[in-house]
This record gives sequence, structure tokens and C-alpha cells, in this order.
Amino acid sequence: MPIAVPLPQAYRLLNHGPTVLVSSAYGERRNVMAAAWNTVLDFDPPKFVVVIDKASYTRELVEASGALALQIPSRAQAALTHAVGSVSGRDEDKFATHQIATFPAEKIAAPLVEGCLAWLECKVIPEPHNQQQYDLFIVEAVAAWADPLVYSEGRWHFPPETPRSIHHVAGGAFFESGELFRAADEA
Amino acid sequence: MPIAVPLPQAYRLLNHGPTVLVSSAYGERRNVMAAAWNTVLDFDPPKFVVVIDKASYTRELVEASGALALQIPSRAQAALTHAVGSVSGRDEDKFATHQIATFPAEKIAAPLVEGCLAWLECKVIPEPHNQQQYDLFIVEAVAAWADPLVYSEGRWHFPPETPRSIHHVAGGAFFESGELFRAADEA
Repeated sequence: MPIAVPLPQAYRLLNHGPTVLVSSAYGERRNVMAAAWNTVLDFDPPKFVVVIDKASYTRELVEASGALALQIPSRAQAALTHAVGSVSGRDEDKFATHQIATFPAEKIAAPLVEGCLAWLECKVIPEPHNQQQYDLFIVEAVAAWADPLVYSEGRWHFPPETPRSIHHVAGGAFFESGELFRAADEA
Repeated sequence: MPIAVPLPQAYRLLNHGPTVLVSSAYGERRNVMAAAWNTVLDFDPPKFVVVIDKASYTRELVEASGALALQIPSRAQAALTHAVGSVSGRDEDKFATHQIATFPAEKIAAPLVEGCLAWLECKVIPEPHNQQQYDLFIVEAVAAWADPLVYSEGRWHFPPETPRSIHHVAGGAFFESGELFRAADEA
């Protein structure tokens, strides 16, 4: 069962730059895509940026609904992450094709993908120039959740053998999030 | 000796979400800070976003010069990265305090930090609303370089025992970039 992450700490879920799954819904339609191009924009209220291509089905659903979920897939979902980043939801229902189990978000309509490490329910802060010119979306998290196996008390802590977050490099190649260390111990 | 990275591939240097060092210069003044909040914005020409706080000395130099360098520190520079992210260049010359060796950029005035894994020389694309409202800067890379020990032929390849790129979590805790794998091999 996901645990709630206090909103002022929600930035910690994305601060290390993982690739995310973006889910969205409008009416009966829903979609999920991958997005390596995301980062934190502010602490409190927690804001994030994510790049969503004009041609994507997600773009249509996000602009219609004004909401999206950013979710951190684990290495066990790497093949899924690459797959949903390689086809359009206009051509197939990715949830059906890839048998993606979901659970409902609390504050937005977008479905949340089971098996992720963390989930951010976000509302779009409308910035038409950024969206049109750069495909750049600014969002504010209104709810945040994490799997307590890997994140609790405000910290990531990946037990051995646990699939970690992933970082897309290019063409289906990823880095797994590696050793956790403190800079003070390296000086 | 750094090798030139073709600009259409420059996004690959930051696609995996590492924390960067941001250097800047204006006239005789120069500075370097850390920025976990960065991501790719476009392939070609390569664009990136980076968050630079209004109170920072870097902000002053970047707005005056219209340029900055994004540089990927290695784990060997983690303590340095945390240190330059924790003090202001207004209070001390960080290059002197931390004995940071630099070499000149080709197209901008900002000094490049020796020992990094890759370097992106960038010009600011002025977007006053983003800068004022969100501390968000959009930049375009005009030159890109990498250490051929860890990046060549368009790919990262970290040999064993080589310090890798790092991903700031919070409060001086980092993940090292971990195992490189292909999603297709995990399906």
C-alpha cells in the first residue's frame, strides 16, 4: 500500500532525475507514456516540469483535463517504460496491450500505475507560451505517494535485490539508480 | 583531453538526469554552483532547462552574460558539488577556496571545471516570465564536450572503478549512476 508523502517533501521523489511514466485521462480516454525530460521546479508548493510532445496523445489528454500523474517506474518496469515510450496511445490502448494494472488517484482522474516506486498527482499550471513554443509543462503536485519498501521517513532506501528507479540514456538504454552515498563521506 | 560531442547528440549527456555544476562569468567575476534541477528540453538544436535561484550570485552573472556552462561532475567531485551548492559566490571565490582547476570554454566566457565527465557551453534563450516567475532558464548548447574515458561514439560507458555521474537526492545524499542495461534484455 502506498504511503502519503508530505507535499513539502515531494520534490525528493524526483530530485535524482529518474525517468517517469506520465499518465493522463479525459472522459473515457486514458493514456500512459514515458518521459525522461522532467525535473523539479520548486519545493513548496511542489512544482515540476515535464516535456510533452505536441504530437502525443498524452498532450491532448493533459491539455483537456489540466492534470497528469508523474510516476517513478522501477527497473522491473524498464521494458514497459521503453514500450509505452515507443508507441502512441492513439494506435492502441497501452493499458490493455501491456496488461498494466492501475489504481485510482485521489485528486485527479489519471489512473496510477501499479508497481511504481512513487506517484505524484499533478495539476497543470497553464503557461500557453511554454506549452506551444517548447512543449514544456509546469505542474504542481496536489498529492504524492511512495512505496514504503523503498521510500519512507522522507528518504529513499533501496534494500538489496529491490528494483530501483531508472534513468533513460537513449534508445532503450538505461542506468539504474546506483549506490546511495553521502558527499561528506567522500571528502 | 575532452572530445567534441556533436550537438544533435548533446542531449545524451543530460538525458539520465545527473546533477550538474553551473559555471558563469561576467567581466572579471566568475562563479560555480550545483543544480540538480535541470533537464533536456529539445534534441536539435539542443536545449536544456535549469533552475537558478533569484538570490544566487550565479543568477546575476548568467543574466548579465547571457551564458552558462552545464557540467557533469563525477563521484570524485561529489563533496565539491555539495560544497559549491551550499555557499554563495558572493561570500567567497569558490574556485580559490576549493582549488578548482578550470580550462577555457570555446564559445562562452564561463570557465569549465576540470575533472568533470562532460561539459555543455550554453547561451540563454531569454524568457523573462519564466526567469522571474519560476527561476527557470531555457538554454541552448552551442558546444559540447565529454571525457572520452566515459563517453565516446555517442554513448556513456563507465569502465569499472571509474567515478560515475551523480544524482542529488537531498541534504548531501546522492545516488551514483548505476548499472547500464538495455530494457530489451529485461523483458
